[in-house]
Amino acid sequence: MLRVLVVDSSRERAADVCAALALAGHQVAAVLPSAFELPAQVLATRPDVIFIQADSPSRDTLEHLAIMNRDCPRPVLMCSPDSDSGMIRRAVKAGVSSYVIDSVSPERLDALVEVAVAQFEAFQNLRAERDDATRKLSERITIDRAKGVLMRARGLDEDGAYHALRKLAMERGRKLADVAQDVIEMAKLLL
Amino acid sequence: MLRVLVVDSSRERAADVCAALALAGHQVAAVLPSAFELPAQVLATRPDVIFIQADSPSRDTLEHLAIMNRDCPRPVLMCSPDSDSGMIRRAVKAGVSSYVIDSVSPERLDALVEVAVAQFEAFQNLRAERDDATRKLSERITIDRAKGVLMRARGLDEDGAYHALRKLAMERGRKLADVAQDVIEMAKLLL
Repeated sequence: MLRVLVVDSSRERAADVCAALALAGHQVAAVLPSAFELPAQVLATRPDVIFIQADSPSRDTLEHLAIMNRDCPRPVLMCSPDSDSGMIRRAVKAGVSSYVIDSVSPERLDALVEVAVAQFEAFQNLRAERDDATRKLSERITIDRAKGVLMRARGLDEDGAYHALRKLAMERGRKLADVAQDVIEMAKLLL
Repeated sequence: MLRVLVVDSSRERAADVCAALALAGHQVAAVLPSAFELPAQVLATRPDVIFIQADSPSRDTLEHLAIMNRDCPRPVLMCSPDSDSGMIRRAVKAGVSSYVIDSVSPERLDALVEVAVAQFEAFQNLRAERDDATRKLSERITIDRAKGVLMRARGLDEDGAYHALRKLAMERGRKLADVAQDVIEMAKLLL
């Protein structure tokens, strides 16, 4: 059972989608007539999937999608008859997990949601790996800079500087990188 | 114009796809009856897109796809009537850029190829960012270790060790991280 947020400017089409979702055992988290409130509604209702149907996704729709994708990424299934390659690229870039050309038959909807979720998860895993590597790199750079500060300020060698940082982190119950950041900022103020 | 490699166990269905691709202005790089030779053929023919049609993608097909995705990633459009969520997940994990449930009508093929290419590119961009951050992190760790080796072996301070590494790199016309790796390995041998 998935909680699906439906975005569709046509009330009638949205009603068909809601019926198909209910029949497939899913729950409708909300129905929005446009993507305008999408970022706020996603934060409020935390749906599992976003389903957007549009004749041609507007620039506004893609902008709201991009905001949501930055603040609270979710699988997005977009159905549109617009097969323009530029449009498809912009939609994928804005965070569409699966772009389906043309409308969706109710009996196919469930499987298409599965595709969107699978493609979103593959993307999110990769994003987490990237964020993890970027964070580790930036922490290491901060720790190295803090060690340099301590080596110069207190005449320590590298090991000594590292142990001084570790001691401070343990005493304060904080992360090594956070303490290192403090050391750099305090050195700017004091030295 | 894209060069498309077609994988289909049905000769008849493959012929329809080739005709649709030709009508859309694309070129068929090769037609394979199974994914068995896919990794080798992709390396040999360097197609822009892989199009796989299968009743239900076999474990072998997904394994060959995963090898290709590791050695020479390419956009993969997969069409299959199999809507099992486990199957969809395994296919996406093996490197399918766009999974389309059921067969593809010839007039829709061109747009579906666009979707696969767009989704592949978004994924590849993220992968490049992850690989870049991972490489920078690993280079930094190597350089730090080599600095430590030089500090201990030659009684240098951190700056001195860094400049010794840089000098060596410049003299040899090699990357700092590569020279650092040499220093670590030579130290194991010599010290």
